[in-house]
Amino acid sequence: MSNLTLTTAIDSFYPPHRTLMGPGPSDISPQVLQALSRPTIGHLDPLFIAMMDELKQLLKYAFQTENEFTIAVSAPGSAGMETCFVNLIEPGEKVIVCRNGVFGERMRENVVRCGGEAILVDDEWGKPVSVEKVEKALAENPDAVAVAFVHAETSTGALSDAQAISAIARQFNALTIVDAVTSLGGVPLLVDEWQLDAVYSGSQKCLSCVPGLSPVTFSQRAVEKMKARQSPVQSWFLDQSLVLGYWSGEGKRSYHHTAPVNSLYALHEALVLLKNEGLDNAWSRHHAMHQELKEGVEALGLKFVVDEESRLPQLNTLYFPEGIDEAKVRTQLLEEYNLEIGAGLGSLAGKAWRIGLMGYGARKENVALCLKALQDVLYQS
Amino acid sequence: MSNLTLTTAIDSFYPPHRTLMGPGPSDISPQVLQALSRPTIGHLDPLFIAMMDELKQLLKYAFQTENEFTIAVSAPGSAGMETCFVNLIEPGEKVIVCRNGVFGERMRENVVRCGGEAILVDDEWGKPVSVEKVEKALAENPDAVAVAFVHAETSTGALSDAQAISAIARQFNALTIVDAVTSLGGVPLLVDEWQLDAVYSGSQKCLSCVPGLSPVTFSQRAVEKMKARQSPVQSWFLDQSLVLGYWSGEGKRSYHHTAPVNSLYALHEALVLLKNEGLDNAWSRHHAMHQELKEGVEALGLKFVVDEESRLPQLNTLYFPEGIDEAKVRTQLLEEYNLEIGAGLGSLAGKAWRIGLMGYGARKENVALCLKALQDVLYQS
Repeated sequence: MSNLTLTTAIDSFYPPHRTLMGPGPSDISPQVLQALSRPTIGHLDPLFIAMMDELKQLLKYAFQTENEFTIAVSAPGSAGMETCFVNLIEPGEKVIVCRNGVFGERMRENVVRCGGEAILVDDEWGKPVSVEKVEKALAENPDAVAVAFVHAETSTGALSDAQAISAIARQFNALTIVDAVTSLGGVPLLVDEWQLDAVYSGSQKCLSCVPGLSPVTFSQRAVEKMKARQSPVQSWFLDQSLVLGYWSGEGKRSYHHTAPVNSLYALHEALVLLKNEGLDNAWSRHHAMHQELKEGVEALGLKFVVDEESRLPQLNTLYFPEGIDEAKVRTQLLEEYNLEIGAGLGSLAGKAWRIGLMGYGARKENVALCLKALQDVLYQS
Repeated sequence: MSNLTLTTAIDSFYPPHRTLMGPGPSDISPQVLQALSRPTIGHLDPLFIAMMDELKQLLKYAFQTENEFTIAVSAPGSAGMETCFVNLIEPGEKVIVCRNGVFGERMRENVVRCGGEAILVDDEWGKPVSVEKVEKALAENPDAVAVAFVHAETSTGALSDAQAISAIARQFNALTIVDAVTSLGGVPLLVDEWQLDAVYSGSQKCLSCVPGLSPVTFSQRAVEKMKARQSPVQSWFLDQSLVLGYWSGEGKRSYHHTAPVNSLYALHEALVLLKNEGLDNAWSRHHAMHQELKEGVEALGLKFVVDEESRLPQLNTLYFPEGIDEAKVRTQLLEEYNLEIGAGLGSLAGKAWRIGLMGYGARKENVALCLKALQDVLYQS
């Protein structure tokens, strides 16, 4: 017999319909939400396995890669990050970690927790990673096994030159571990052409899928590094040598963990939408919406944190006018307009906002709503 | 410009409507799927935080605990398992691991990957954990910091006496780490009354929610062990000292990772349904449906792997008649009746089936369909 009862009345939860223009989760297409709620089938059902095979193809297209090892980790982007580090880095190994925002620091945390040694390349928040500094760090540490950097820093809105960093890393025979959480689907990311080795992303940014999944892709070089490991991967759940038995192989797949079936339906649908639009068109759309937003917010007196040449179209980090109660503005936007924009993170907390134009959220109606609501709240209150 | 294109035509995926009577995922109520597809809101939206607070209350009811630290890990049950081990066990510590199926072995893997030493208590597959053997192992290893065991072994269908194992562990001042993936919501589980310390479950079994979440609860003793750690938790993603900053605290919550917003809506809804039915009624229903299934399958000549006194109502592991092509039977059930039953796992692979009666799946119509379809396929083909 149970003996503890609930003391408060709790009923079904009905969320309001928000317009999501923060740093993610982004606005989700009704088609994707509809796919999410299709009937659950077993994670070893042949029809589900066939869906996963399609999903791999779609992810390869999104990442612009022919890497066979291209899957979705059954957990959010931070778990995708951890997947790359725990599988690729062994205790005692050196990793060059580029830190120009919150997620570079998180990469350092990961290296240390794997028993690795992080060699830091620091750049100012809002600036891209300095390719020259990476080269210097590699020259000073030719035994570094990898260079880890964030392609699109979600905390600052800065885009780094993944192709150039990768070229330098190759010269020193180091792998690249790349955070593409906010870049995938929003700006060009050419995994094969740029020869990136381990790339992870998130479902809830420019793919406009529900949060909770992390697409990852590993090059042949990365796979070889994993196979040559001397020590076991410290995480059972993220051990890709086990996970692969479920995601690939002719015929029979072996059970590792129960896949998040419905979330994978949603990711499949989001990627079908991306494929139907075409990557180039999606990138152009993000760029065009950014231009519209830019003109509007500058007219309202907001200033970009990031210089124009390394500015992400999908994540606009903006200093707000001095003297305003920034939290009150965001609350007003949320409560009166059902509009979410993002607070600053880390060293930009209390100093800047983050306005996302990601995936399905990068639409003219969203830009218009955001500009008019900001104008109302900033100048008519 | 992108340069790789998809060579195969891929369109939206429409799964069939299966009746899920395997070891999970289980049948999901239409209400839960509907909740899943409600509009996504931000993971720091005040309304979402309020929903999470309700979710904690609902989980505390389901676990029958007043543990403040009761949350859902943003990943499947295997990540919930890993959460318990990486947070509670430090390198060099001894853990008594009870192994009477696949998941006990997975616990051993976890202990080893945390740098701990696993002292094994082995019992035959299909048998419950022997309390006497646990006592003996503790007497021989009084420095063991924890006893880890599976309450309801999903690979065999055996229920172990969690209360008795916990009482012994307490005598030796060891914590208990309990796999309740298949037990939560299906059979009595009284976390506080039985004084269990770290308990994890899965969303996709007797809670009948979508796969991808792992409810966990930690006692005060477990929290103190975490706080007294000398070494950092090896996983950043699963480090509960960081995760708690998001799941609790008055007022402001701090960002750790982006929560799987929609899946948490679904878990909230599934738990509201459980609360409305009442735990005792849910347990009785599972028992009653098991009785119906039992009579039917025995009449068909199937034999239970597990003795009656430790048999799980929600997971029926059955030896099938000799000489049949068991995979063909399962395929026929799936293709002709849209009915999924589970294959045997580990040492029971190719020897037994697993028929689940979990959560929303524990209904008379499911039992009837399963019995008639089995009869057709076994004896009319």
